[in-house]
Amino acid sequence: MDAAQEAHNREAFRQAVVNTLERRLFYIPSFKIYRGVAGLYDYGPPGCAVKSNVLAFWRQHFVLEENMLEVDCPCVTPEVVLKASGHVDKFTDLMVKDEKTGTCYRADHLLKDYCKDKLEKDPNLSSEKAAELRHVLAVLDDLSAEELGAKIKGYGITAPDTKNTLSDPYPFNLMFQTSIGPSGLSPGYMRPETAQGIFVNFKDLYYYNGNKLPFAAAQIGQAFRNEISPRQGLLRVREFTLAEIEHFVDPDDKSHPKFSEVANLEFLMFPREDQVSGRAARRMPIGEAVSQGIVNNETLGYFIGRVYLFLTHLGIDKERLRFRQHLANEMAHYAADCWDAEIECSYGWIECVGIADRSAYDLRAHTDKSGVPLVAHEKFPEPREVEKLVITPVKKELGLAFKGSQRMVVEALEAMVEKEAMEMKATLEAKGEADFRVCTLDKVVTIKDTMVTISKEKKKEHQRVFTPSVIEPSFGIGRIIYCLFEHSFYTRPSKDGDEQLNVFRFPPLVAPIKCTVFPLVQNQQYEEVAKKIAKSLTAVGISYKIDITGTSIGKRYARTDELGVPLAITVDSTSSVTIRERDSKQQIRVNVDEVASVVMAVTDGVSTWADMLWKYPTHSS
Amino acid sequence: MDAAQEAHNREAFRQAVVNTLERRLFYIPSFKIYRGVAGLYDYGPPGCAVKSNVLAFWRQHFVLEENMLEVDCPCVTPEVVLKASGHVDKFTDLMVKDEKTGTCYRADHLLKDYCKDKLEKDPNLSSEKAAELRHVLAVLDDLSAEELGAKIKGYGITAPDTKNTLSDPYPFNLMFQTSIGPSGLSPGYMRPETAQGIFVNFKDLYYYNGNKLPFAAAQIGQAFRNEISPRQGLLRVREFTLAEIEHFVDPDDKSHPKFSEVANLEFLMFPREDQVSGRAARRMPIGEAVSQGIVNNETLGYFIGRVYLFLTHLGIDKERLRFRQHLANEMAHYAADCWDAEIECSYGWIECVGIADRSAYDLRAHTDKSGVPLVAHEKFPEPREVEKLVITPVKKELGLAFKGSQRMVVEALEAMVEKEAMEMKATLEAKGEADFRVCTLDKVVTIKDTMVTISKEKKKEHQRVFTPSVIEPSFGIGRIIYCLFEHSFYTRPSKDGDEQLNVFRFPPLVAPIKCTVFPLVQNQQYEEVAKKIAKSLTAVGISYKIDITGTSIGKRYARTDELGVPLAITVDSTSSVTIRERDSKQQIRVNVDEVASVVMAVTDGVSTWADMLWKYPTHSS
Repeated sequence: MDAAQEAHNREAFRQAVVNTLERRLFYIPSFKIYRGVAGLYDYGPPGCAVKSNVLAFWRQHFVLEENMLEVDCPCVTPEVVLKASGHVDKFTDLMVKDEKTGTCYRADHLLKDYCKDKLEKDPNLSSEKAAELRHVLAVLDDLSAEELGAKIKGYGITAPDTKNTLSDPYPFNLMFQTSIGPSGLSPGYMRPETAQGIFVNFKDLYYYNGNKLPFAAAQIGQAFRNEISPRQGLLRVREFTLAEIEHFVDPDDKSHPKFSEVANLEFLMFPREDQVSGRAARRMPIGEAVSQGIVNNETLGYFIGRVYLFLTHLGIDKERLRFRQHLANEMAHYAADCWDAEIECSYGWIECVGIADRSAYDLRAHTDKSGVPLVAHEKFPEPREVEKLVITPVKKELGLAFKGSQRMVVEALEAMVEKEAMEMKATLEAKGEADFRVCTLDKVVTIKDTMVTISKEKKKEHQRVFTPSVIEPSFGIGRIIYCLFEHSFYTRPSKDGDEQLNVFRFPPLVAPIKCTVFPLVQNQQYEEVAKKIAKSLTAVGISYKIDITGTSIGKRYARTDELGVPLAITVDSTSSVTIRERDSKQQIRVNVDEVASVVMAVTDGVSTWADMLWKYPTHSS
Repeated sequence: MDAAQEAHNREAFRQAVVNTLERRLFYIPSFKIYRGVAGLYDYGPPGCAVKSNVLAFWRQHFVLEENMLEVDCPCVTPEVVLKASGHVDKFTDLMVKDEKTGTCYRADHLLKDYCKDKLEKDPNLSSEKAAELRHVLAVLDDLSAEELGAKIKGYGITAPDTKNTLSDPYPFNLMFQTSIGPSGLSPGYMRPETAQGIFVNFKDLYYYNGNKLPFAAAQIGQAFRNEISPRQGLLRVREFTLAEIEHFVDPDDKSHPKFSEVANLEFLMFPREDQVSGRAARRMPIGEAVSQGIVNNETLGYFIGRVYLFLTHLGIDKERLRFRQHLANEMAHYAADCWDAEIECSYGWIECVGIADRSAYDLRAHTDKSGVPLVAHEKFPEPREVEKLVITPVKKELGLAFKGSQRMVVEALEAMVEKEAMEMKATLEAKGEADFRVCTLDKVVTIKDTMVTISKEKKKEHQRVFTPSVIEPSFGIGRIIYCLFEHSFYTRPSKDGDEQLNVFRFPPLVAPIKCTVFPLVQNQQYEEVAKKIAKSLTAVGISYKIDITGTSIGKRYARTDELGVPLAITVDSTSSVTIRERDSKQQIRVNVDEVASVVMAVTDGVSTWADMLWKYPTHSS
């Protein structure tokens, strides 16, 4: 199958999934009666139920299992917080404008579309040109505004709709801006991630945890990105639910007590080196990846393993899930290591969970901005005697000598490491002065022995004070759910073979409704039985839907399969009923009184459908 | 006890509750390290757990029990939607500005504070003046901008901090405004309520429900109000969680099939008449309130009953909960009836749930603005022959006669009810012309028989098309939780009697953690047992906290009581442990293997603590 055919099949598959999802109200474009807003979607009843099941499982699997501290912070965030985090200055995409109509486009999208289009459709493309375009696609994310602009001009790319010329690319901040309070003087933003709410509370959370490390805090909530031109349906939206964990750990000890529980898990890993050298992702036990130093540390490895378990339990196909390490140029300068859980769907491999060791960056940034030290303490069992380097610049002398440059010289002196300082001390004692390079002034100055004293002093220390590292698994819930929809969808022929029926093979954990109840024919007796069963299901907290329409049983099965409901209960007598499993279509006969316990056992995972087949008589319709 | 003493006690009680809540991180002012933002709060770990328990119970009690259609819509909302709903024009508070510093205040708050202060503290106040001030307080919510301004000027009220003069009051829109997309041309707002997301989806939801009424849709989510000057802690905030239900019903049939299940519930009701005539709230069965016509209809009554059950199950004190009917001047002109569930706390009686019959207002507003008919259909079993009044204005003649006023005359003619139209028809036939009052022109015009034809025609109708009424229970989750904190809080003396200890008597349903596990002394054996118990608790989904600090057992009990944890497990041997109940402080001995099942039975409500006292040996420490 050639690439074009494959692309066409992917499109057709996606269309079938999306049609089913929209028709059955899993999700719908928001504000549809007003012709909608790009990048905003509503979850309808089954989608909303799937989402709340996914979140409940997330809480169970992460928060409860690891005793995490869950918090819930507002979306409205004052500017100072996002200034400290870097979002006000750097959370931007490069944008170009149609110079006549003012319509905005993402610069990289236009360039990407141009290259792909040429590569796919231009039969006269030379092999040099093709190689060049492929190279552009590979480095797209690294291009500066100037480079992007030059390429757009160079290739003669114009506005897609009007063919008008385009402006130079310029950064557009992706945060929704607003104003807090009535004065108009307090700018605020809708948070672009939930993590900052945790960082600013570090001090209180550390205290709450008995001043002990490691501990993790977690938050589920809405986040916002004012995308320039949203596309790819649920994958790139302007408002979405994030579930984030910030695991705070001693930078000198990133071991994890439960690492052995995940060490033998084996799944697709795609380390940096393999990507650079053009190899494919490969199956590897996470224990090995950590011991070989491919994954930076145990805690990071532990979370990669837990994320793998989380996603596959939801029903994500193991073969279409990989953990890809960030390339050096993708990673923030402060990050120690970063892996994305990527899920393959009709749009390609999609980043759904980011798992990053962000070192001490975030806590330091808020410490600097707020003046409140966000640090941890390690008390020593015995006080330790340490020798400390003490550098004391004599500001008066330095001021006379360097005037306006004094501050730079002072800072450079104070920043000397031990070896450098001790060398200067020796030189000063020997010669009375020393040459000293001040980077920030980009020149060498002469330091006299009257300008600085350097000594080593013995001190007793009772504790170590340090900024913890943070390891951050961050889950894009909407993306995970969309990939889950694709991985769960299949079609099969109807009984008479004249149409294809849609099925979602959701595990019970995820299914929007656990069972449907159908009276076989419309009569009062059967409806009474259906109501009795419904009541018993409600009592044990199982969600269900009664379908009392007179439609044929086959049609009702098709409807419920299309919602991914695992079990269908058909009331065809007043004492016992049939229960049908969605994927095998097998049926068993169960007494009315036992229905709720059977459904609960299967949907809670205490028993399997196979157990039930063995325990109850099968039924052939 | 006089009023001042009572106010003082209320303040002291509130301070004790709030201190405990903030110290134990139930909630904290958001962005505290940056000196916070008024009206924004974070839920810390125990608060977040309480909130998620309350929401889980809300889903169980309303959504699952009533088979509601839950949806999840974005917070970012385009202007057109909130224009249709009336929020862009009318969602305002009256504000005054300090004329020198520009500081903003809510006009009604300043007037209220002035009146209260005078009444409480001015010993020379004449009885006439006191009566006047009390009257101002009573009508405060009804005052127009002009009236408020006149009172503020008249009483010489100045800015509280600077004593500068104040501007005239003017409306300030309480929505957070933003801009959607990069162009800056699409204004949007952060939604002030979740309801609009449901209304705009009515058509799809009605279809999803098999085109049948009644049905209810529900939504839990964040809502935003840019308060001018937030006060009262968690009660008046700028961002909060709402849980809203929109129950759509045939306006001709507001009966409810399950009304009998709540009809005998008896609780404090405060009907409009009783408020006006100065009577107190009184206990009344909701069935009686509906049958006497005090509550407008069964569906509204059903929800009032369900809300009562919801709140009291959470632990709200029945004696401090009342349902207050809106006065005529409080209610929107379109509403059929409206009741607030008010809970008494240290701030007075606080509206926590609004339960309103909003008639067809919202669906009509969106039908008008969007042009998409949001209507329901009732198919008749047999087509019905109906006589329909047909009024056909002859626009040409009317145009000649009335020129610019033509449209008003046409609309008035078309709006005639049957009786009026048939009288005009008779007059026109007898005299060739008729007098006709056009309200919008405020005059009587002469209509000639050439200007309009009026007839009755027989038509076959197959269905009735109508706009459903909506009954809306709307829950302010943060307010409910705050009141729950106050109602659950008490203090008791420590064992040695030298300090008062704080306790939250949360029911297990609400408690942030279901149990704590304490090894009695720090040794490996006991810690192993504690871990074993912890694992068995996790397996059955019970949240717990292990406390392995060496602190005295009394201190550890006090800590856990202050978090409202119902059960404490003390590991004092390797085979059996003690379980202590928070409020009675009674203890039982239970085998290690049975601990999880005992805790689960008590916290799930399958058994009571009394059952366990009977079943297991008691333990005296």
